[in-house]
Amino acid sequence: VSRPELILALPEDDQPLYLRVARAIEDAIRGGRLRPGDAMPGSRSLADRLGVHRNTVKNAYAELIAQDWLRTQPSSSTFVSPTLPVMKVRPSSGARDCGFAMPALALPPADNWAHLGGAQLNFWGMDPQLMPVKALARAYRGALRGREVPPLDYHPGRGHPRLIRALGAMLSEARGLPPDVDLLVTRGSQMGLSLTIRALLRPGDVVAVEEPGYAYSWPAFALAGVRLVPIAVDGHGMIVDSLARVLTRTPVRAVLVTPHMQYPTGVTLSAARRLALLTLATRHRFAIIEDDFVNEVRYDGPPVLPLASRDPTGVTIYLGSLSKTFAPSLRIGYVAGPSPFIERLTRIRALVDVCGDSVLELAVAGLIEDGELQRHVRRLTRVYRERRARLAGELRARLGSAVSFEEPAGGTALWIEVDPAIDVEAWAAAALIEGVGILTGRLFFLDGRPRPYLWLGFAGLAEDQLGAGVAGMARALQQLR
Amino acid sequence: VSRPELILALPEDDQPLYLRVARAIEDAIRGGRLRPGDAMPGSRSLADRLGVHRNTVKNAYAELIAQDWLRTQPSSSTFVSPTLPVMKVRPSSGARDCGFAMPALALPPADNWAHLGGAQLNFWGMDPQLMPVKALARAYRGALRGREVPPLDYHPGRGHPRLIRALGAMLSEARGLPPDVDLLVTRGSQMGLSLTIRALLRPGDVVAVEEPGYAYSWPAFALAGVRLVPIAVDGHGMIVDSLARVLTRTPVRAVLVTPHMQYPTGVTLSAARRLALLTLATRHRFAIIEDDFVNEVRYDGPPVLPLASRDPTGVTIYLGSLSKTFAPSLRIGYVAGPSPFIERLTRIRALVDVCGDSVLELAVAGLIEDGELQRHVRRLTRVYRERRARLAGELRARLGSAVSFEEPAGGTALWIEVDPAIDVEAWAAAALIEGVGILTGRLFFLDGRPRPYLWLGFAGLAEDQLGAGVAGMARALQQLR
Repeated sequence: VSRPELILALPEDDQPLYLRVARAIEDAIRGGRLRPGDAMPGSRSLADRLGVHRNTVKNAYAELIAQDWLRTQPSSSTFVSPTLPVMKVRPSSGARDCGFAMPALALPPADNWAHLGGAQLNFWGMDPQLMPVKALARAYRGALRGREVPPLDYHPGRGHPRLIRALGAMLSEARGLPPDVDLLVTRGSQMGLSLTIRALLRPGDVVAVEEPGYAYSWPAFALAGVRLVPIAVDGHGMIVDSLARVLTRTPVRAVLVTPHMQYPTGVTLSAARRLALLTLATRHRFAIIEDDFVNEVRYDGPPVLPLASRDPTGVTIYLGSLSKTFAPSLRIGYVAGPSPFIERLTRIRALVDVCGDSVLELAVAGLIEDGELQRHVRRLTRVYRERRARLAGELRARLGSAVSFEEPAGGTALWIEVDPAIDVEAWAAAALIEGVGILTGRLFFLDGRPRPYLWLGFAGLAEDQLGAGVAGMARALQQLR
Repeated sequence: VSRPELILALPEDDQPLYLRVARAIEDAIRGGRLRPGDAMPGSRSLADRLGVHRNTVKNAYAELIAQDWLRTQPSSSTFVSPTLPVMKVRPSSGARDCGFAMPALALPPADNWAHLGGAQLNFWGMDPQLMPVKALARAYRGALRGREVPPLDYHPGRGHPRLIRALGAMLSEARGLPPDVDLLVTRGSQMGLSLTIRALLRPGDVVAVEEPGYAYSWPAFALAGVRLVPIAVDGHGMIVDSLARVLTRTPVRAVLVTPHMQYPTGVTLSAARRLALLTLATRHRFAIIEDDFVNEVRYDGPPVLPLASRDPTGVTIYLGSLSKTFAPSLRIGYVAGPSPFIERLTRIRALVDVCGDSVLELAVAGLIEDGELQRHVRRLTRVYRERRARLAGELRARLGSAVSFEEPAGGTALWIEVDPAIDVEAWAAAALIEGVGILTGRLFFLDGRPRPYLWLGFAGLAEDQLGAGVAGMARALQQLR
């Protein structure tokens, strides 16, 4: 690691200039930026850099040599004294406490998800081995040496035009959205949600969410002062009748829903409920925030079109992302919706983040245009299908009646109901000691109280690891009994 | 552009399955996803994809052939009928209007900066020719094939550890921040500001800003319901005495300041005012948001250390960015400040955007570690110094007493006082007709009323272009007279 060039900044006070230079050097030594034995720059070079006369630097060096901060050699080079006086470092100026007042905020506790990542085998996350590193590297290269001027300047707006076109074509051809749907490219679907909250909601507004549901979204609402009303989920998705009952007594501004594969249960919202939800939204003028977080990964049966593809009244805000199918750190998502809404989102986004990373946006456009993204999704789906089967088989073989579940038509996880006689939280704690991280039901409910469910993601673990993970779960369960 | 694979989604109703398949195909033709003459997939292939029996697809094709949506050839391949019945496309489902209610928001008008970009020669922006495309491409390559596991999974937190280390070392060695300063990597300084607003401010809070000042930040405050109080700027930066007077009657929660090179005037905040500002902040417990937007580009005199380097009471929030010195679209910025504040920012950021782009973060860490960033800044500074001299010379030669200005010690623009007899807005309009875009004073004042100033950026134009631009300005001025 080469060191950045040392730059000295002179204290601003009324002392003679040479003493201020000397103090700046002393500060650099005290702060550890100059270390014992380091060679000092020549006086002419430092003088040029500081914009002072050379004699000023010579005088400063002389002063510091007198104090034994610096030493000089017969050959006339100057260096930091190798035997510095034992010095008490002055208090750090980066005080650890705030000198200013901060208002109270509705933030989730910092450690809410802190337990994630402790184990050797975690039933969540993605598999770095499956990420298309080479295709990505090629795409970056292409984006930076294409015939187009490198897209390196600011470009506020919807996103790089080529990515907007590529995403629009994909959403229209594969998901039935109108070919001219209005789109904003975001960093990922969480940014899409966060911008939507700012555009649409005010403190005190009510939003209905699925329960169990996508808990990661909830603090984003809480931060904005929005109140959440849970709507239960059954084997056909969100129980829209329950939402209808809520609407008789509470105005609801928006509903967050995962119709394609409900998160976390994996069920698909039934046709009748889709229609009922769209009808309710149109009548009550609330927005349907449709989070289609993992549309592409589907194993069985025909794909189901998003609500956004059947929305003549413009009530749907459609959130998507490439994070789940390509690489989480890619941070490319999008929001599709009625133009006045997308226009507003675009203006808010300019204030929040100016614009996206146009190199990345162009690279991803290339991956879609070449069909690389689609090929990658097909590869992933093949691998995930096998992992799903392996996990299901291991669970049946090793855990038997302790668990029951159905294999979801898509997505990357099993939602598992646990024998009510088993203390799920104790099981998870015991599994962690066995080196296996599992997510328990309470993480998907608003009140955070224990529930007899597990969410086991199979995207992040190879087949052998899935087997070893379930074996660890089984050992943990033994210990409970 | 290769087309994404056609995916049909079946309508969900009680019709027989083959009719639903037929309707899905009809929809694809009506929607333009299938075009006259397009070959249809084989019935087995489509059946597999839809998860239906092959005969279902055959029956659907037969139905559509009967209706003349499809035709078939002796060789038995099926294709979309080349002479489709004249059809009225059903209304697009991506309605242009919102079906849901949106609250009023304090957003700037969409066209506030829309006039920017109309001219051939614009005195703003950056020069794509100067952007280090090759170094960037190398850095991406390095990030994706280093020995470290490709950083492609989610990584909520402060940012990629290697970038945190590299930025920390740079800020400590070159800008005197404490070596252990707490940092959050953001997309750019606008995101740093936006997160700071969310962490620190509530509707109705008062923030003091420089006037003239960085207007792009103001709508971000307005969006959060924050009230701005302007503090005038003179040749020594923000007039801190004026701020002190405001404080006697109004509690101020934060002050946004550009001490190193004031935006837009380019002046440096004097030593006495720095001390006074830090003292006021400590006494009144407000935050100093120090936007050090273009620290590295300095031509004359010694660098001046940021306020954040002399802040024993923890009142400074330091915003920086690599956008201005590397490439705007790189979108790497950072916030340094007291740990409890950075911790809060980090948690808000996780809700707003989950995490940064770790490939980019690792690439930029490599550019700093290799000294590439620093070399690039030195190259840029050399070029900008010449452009500054050229622009100043052209202005003196061609515009004479119409303008007066001082050459700033750093930064990428001249702040120019215009002869009060000249109508600046009319001049800018006439210049635009000459193909020259200039920014007028009113854009930097809260009330947006005309002021006798111009802001001329010289980073985006080569020397010849600067000459041509000033010539255009001179012709425009002639026409006014």
